[in-house]
Amino acid sequence: MVKQERAARTRRSLILAAAEVFAEEGFVSASLTAISRRAGVSNGALHFHFDSKNGLACGVEEEAARRVRRLTVLAGADGPPALQLLVDSTHALMRGLADDVVVRAGFELSGDLSRVTGVDLRGEWRCWIETVLQRAAAQGALADGVSYADAASAILAATVGFQVLGARGDKDWISRRTLTGFWELMLPRLAARDALDTVVTCGSRCVVGVPEVPVEEPV
Amino acid sequence: MVKQERAARTRRSLILAAAEVFAEEGFVSASLTAISRRAGVSNGALHFHFDSKNGLACGVEEEAARRVRRLTVLAGADGPPALQLLVDSTHALMRGLADDVVVRAGFELSGDLSRVTGVDLRGEWRCWIETVLQRAAAQGALADGVSYADAASAILAATVGFQVLGARGDKDWISRRTLTGFWELMLPRLAARDALDTVVTCGSRCVVGVPEVPVEEPV
Repeated sequence: MVKQERAARTRRSLILAAAEVFAEEGFVSASLTAISRRAGVSNGALHFHFDSKNGLACGVEEEAARRVRRLTVLAGADGPPALQLLVDSTHALMRGLADDVVVRAGFELSGDLSRVTGVDLRGEWRCWIETVLQRAAAQGALADGVSYADAASAILAATVGFQVLGARGDKDWISRRTLTGFWELMLPRLAARDALDTVVTCGSRCVVGVPEVPVEEPV
Repeated sequence: MVKQERAARTRRSLILAAAEVFAEEGFVSASLTAISRRAGVSNGALHFHFDSKNGLACGVEEEAARRVRRLTVLAGADGPPALQLLVDSTHALMRGLADDVVVRAGFELSGDLSRVTGVDLRGEWRCWIETVLQRAAAQGALADGVSYADAASAILAATVGFQVLGARGDKDWISRRTLTGFWELMLPRLAARDALDTVVTCGSRCVVGVPEVPVEEPV
C-alpha cells in the first residue's frame, strides 16, 4: 500500500473511532488515548492527522455533514415532488442518526455548547429544510396561508428535538414510526389538498430502500 | 438575621449564581470559584451547602423543576380547557426559558450527556404534556383518529428543539411568535373542530399576563 493510501486509511479509522468515543462518552470526557487505541494507531499518528481533540471533533462534524448531504442527494435521486423530498429527507436523517455513529456524533458535537464547532451541521440542515420548502411553495404544494418560515422552524425544531431526545440511547425517538406520527399531524395543515393526497408520510420507497451508510467507506 | 435565614439566603444566591455561570459557560467549563465569587460568598460557604459542582447543578435542576411546575400551575389557574392549557403551558415554558436563567440553565443541564442529572426535567415536562393531552382526549377535544402518543412525541420534540436551538442565544427560537407558528400548523389536525375554534394559539390572556418569575424569591 502506498504511503498516501495508508495515511487516508488511518485518518478514516481515527474519524470513526473518535465518533464512537464521542458518542459514548461525550466530547469533554473522551480521551485521545482511548480514540487512538480504538483506531488501532499510535498517539503519534493521531497527532500527525489532528492537532487537538477539537480538531478531531471538527473532522467528525465535517464527515457527518458530508454524509447528511449525501443522504439528501439520495432522497432526491428519483426527483420526487418537493414535499415528498422534505418528508423523505427527514426519514433519511433519522435513519442516519440511528445507523451511523458518525452522523450521530456529528449532531451531538454540533449542539455541544462547551466547544467551538467546526461545520454548522444544524445550520446546514436548516438551510436544506428551507430550500426544499421554497421549492414546495414554487410547486404550489403548500396550503394557502401557511407561513413558510413557521413551517421551517417547526420542522427544524422537531427534528432537532428528536435527535437530542434520541441521543441518550432511546431509539424510539429517531424511529420511522415516531417521525411518521409527526408528519401525520403536520402535513394536513402544511400541504395543499392535491399535494397532501400523494405524500407518503412514512417515507417513499426511495428512502426506505436507501442502503445503510457504510461507516467504512473513504472519508 | 437569624442563622437559618442567612443560610437559606446564601443557598439561594448560590443557586442563582450557578445557573448564571452554567448558562454562560456550560457545566464542564464552569468553576466553583467563579460561582462563589458571583454569589458573593466564600468557597467554604459554597462547600457547606453543596458537596460538588454536580451537587450545585442538581440544585439548579431541582429549582428549575419547581419553577416549571409553578408555571404550569399558573397556566391552569383559570381552569382553561385542556387543549388551551397545553398551548398556554408551552408558551409559559418558552417565556420561562427566555426570562429566567434558572429555568434555562436547568434545561441545559438536563440535556448534558457529560453528567448524571438529578431531577429529570425533560421527563417531567413530557409527563405534563401527556397528562394534559389525556385530559383533552377525555374532554373530546382531540380530533378523530389522532394518536395521543404521536401528539405527545411531536409536542415534546418541538419544545425541546426550540429550547436547545434557543440555548445558543438566539431568542427567536423561544419567542411567542415562533411557538404560535408551531401551534397554527399542529392544531388543525390535532384538535376536534369545536375545540379548534376556541383555542388561542398565541396563548390566552392568563399566560400572556403571567408575571415574570422573580429570580430572587425563596428557593
